[in-house]
Amino acid sequence: MTSELIRTTIEGISPLDGEAMQAARQRQARLTKPAGSLGELEELSVRMAGLASTCPPPMLSPAALAVFAADHGVHAQEVTPWPQAVTAQMVANFLAGGAAVNAFARQAGVAVSVIDIGVLSDLDPAEGLIRAKVRHGTADMSVEAAMSRQEATAALETGITIANQLISDGATVLLTGDMGIANTTASAALISVFTGRDPGMVTGYGTGIDATTHARKIEVIKRSLALHQPAAEDPIGALSAVGGLEHAGLAGFILGAAARRVPVILDGVNALAAALVAQELSPLSREAMVAGHRSVEPGATVALARLDLAPLLEFGMRLGEGTGAVLAYPIVASAVRVLHEMATFDSAGVTEK
Amino acid sequence: MTSELIRTTIEGISPLDGEAMQAARQRQARLTKPAGSLGELEELSVRMAGLASTCPPPMLSPAALAVFAADHGVHAQEVTPWPQAVTAQMVANFLAGGAAVNAFARQAGVAVSVIDIGVLSDLDPAEGLIRAKVRHGTADMSVEAAMSRQEATAALETGITIANQLISDGATVLLTGDMGIANTTASAALISVFTGRDPGMVTGYGTGIDATTHARKIEVIKRSLALHQPAAEDPIGALSAVGGLEHAGLAGFILGAAARRVPVILDGVNALAAALVAQELSPLSREAMVAGHRSVEPGATVALARLDLAPLLEFGMRLGEGTGAVLAYPIVASAVRVLHEMATFDSAGVTEK
Repeated sequence: MTSELIRTTIEGISPLDGEAMQAARQRQARLTKPAGSLGELEELSVRMAGLASTCPPPMLSPAALAVFAADHGVHAQEVTPWPQAVTAQMVANFLAGGAAVNAFARQAGVAVSVIDIGVLSDLDPAEGLIRAKVRHGTADMSVEAAMSRQEATAALETGITIANQLISDGATVLLTGDMGIANTTASAALISVFTGRDPGMVTGYGTGIDATTHARKIEVIKRSLALHQPAAEDPIGALSAVGGLEHAGLAGFILGAAARRVPVILDGVNALAAALVAQELSPLSREAMVAGHRSVEPGATVALARLDLAPLLEFGMRLGEGTGAVLAYPIVASAVRVLHEMATFDSAGVTEK
Repeated sequence: MTSELIRTTIEGISPLDGEAMQAARQRQARLTKPAGSLGELEELSVRMAGLASTCPPPMLSPAALAVFAADHGVHAQEVTPWPQAVTAQMVANFLAGGAAVNAFARQAGVAVSVIDIGVLSDLDPAEGLIRAKVRHGTADMSVEAAMSRQEATAALETGITIANQLISDGATVLLTGDMGIANTTASAALISVFTGRDPGMVTGYGTGIDATTHARKIEVIKRSLALHQPAAEDPIGALSAVGGLEHAGLAGFILGAAARRVPVILDGVNALAAALVAQELSPLSREAMVAGHRSVEPGATVALARLDLAPLLEFGMRLGEGTGAVLAYPIVASAVRVLHEMATFDSAGVTEK
């Protein structure tokens, strides 16, 4: 059912390297600091060594953020007050460098690519824009499948290809970004499928909708799930029934990173919904994931628990675009830097206790 | 009782500028993102505007970290298993760029200065080292006052002078760092004085001491407080009785930043103990403080509550040096960047909901 590229990518994902992790733990113990004093960053550095299968693991620079942009047919159900045209307008804003994620990326030194994987309108070529449209937005999932299995597969393949391309261009860490008016509706539906939680428990206020819209959003998700009966055991089926093209792209992107043993820093609820798809396709892919932050969307917390990931940051954010991933990036890079740049007690002539 | 420099510095600290804060709030509302979607970072940017008294506030680069290093006579009471010589050895490590804070500072683009404000041994001149020794370590506070009032005042003045110097050299944000074997003992004593909490509630395991040492540490602090009876209302008296030279220096550093309307990112428990001194000397100085992280030291949480500051990060760290402040710096800089670099709905041609 899955394509050759998806199959070989999944087959290429292997467990963390225990030997490299052990080497990282031993190295941490010799560095000029009390044992364990860097807290969670020490275990993060150990996981990065295990992922890279070498200690120290590569420095996490250059860093590449991919913002997957797409539209959603379910917008017709009035699940958000924002016009659908905002997706394409925000793509232009990203390309002009005027969005929040651009400001954060400049601070952190992260390169930004925008992928048109399914924006409704046709977009002109532009620097920084990767044109990889699979279809012009999804269909309304409350009426029919959001996309065909073939389209979901194609979007997954696109995500894998983007990951491979960015890594081949030099990126040693990938970051997820997303843009798509109404995409938290698809995210909540996917999270409901993969966690078994009621839509009412995983559906939030997105960009800031009112209570009436929130109730309608939950109702639309329930109706869509009842219509398609998507099963977690068939992740591509779930994607095609109630997912978004950016979710499929992001799931492929995560799998692509994992297969290349490159860490992927996840942003908020849309990335986490995609991560559940990736985890279902390859449970080992979870080892490459770093949770950037905890979004205020309730589905984010449910998905993080399912993925068994602790987010690095928690600022009550709910913007998407990759903003939470970019803010977390310097912290992950710092954790890895410790293994490269810190002196040992011996080398620095510091007395141990 | 306080010196002319301390008096004029305190008098120079004024409230946040409500007009600039209002301008920042209005600007946040026009930027291309849903209102409030950057969560705590939006309020942080508003405070930064109020502190700078202009909107947008200056970009937070260059950033300067000052690591105040000093020794502690209370080391004689065996409150830590680390030899006292480690303070000077770690100063050398900082200057050679081999400590954790150096690795983090390279990632974040933060300049590191080390201030010998009271290291026991004499240190040779070196690049990056500011020699401003007030005395060769404190006396054992469990036997006599840690230092004289004159010495505490001189160390406060040194901190103010360092802040002014770094700001005059171009820094638009300051970060606190500290190094001093046994300094968490002095921190716990200060936090007990300024919060009224029992030493048993604010004394932690520092670098990782055993239960016997922890019990002794609490006992030593109790004995010292009983001997000197320091009062929160006399912060310089409290510093001289049970403080450290780096605590006095850091308190001055914070006051100096506040008087220049420059934000100061606080590291862990030692910075927070110093911040309590600064707050007592000038309650308005709190407005310039940004809590970088929550250290695992129990005194840190108690001090944060007293300062009414919410830490940006929480990774279970307990290293000091400024590591938590440096990790938090790009986040604070990102919050300010938003006010500078993001497009508005009008300028980007993005439709509002």
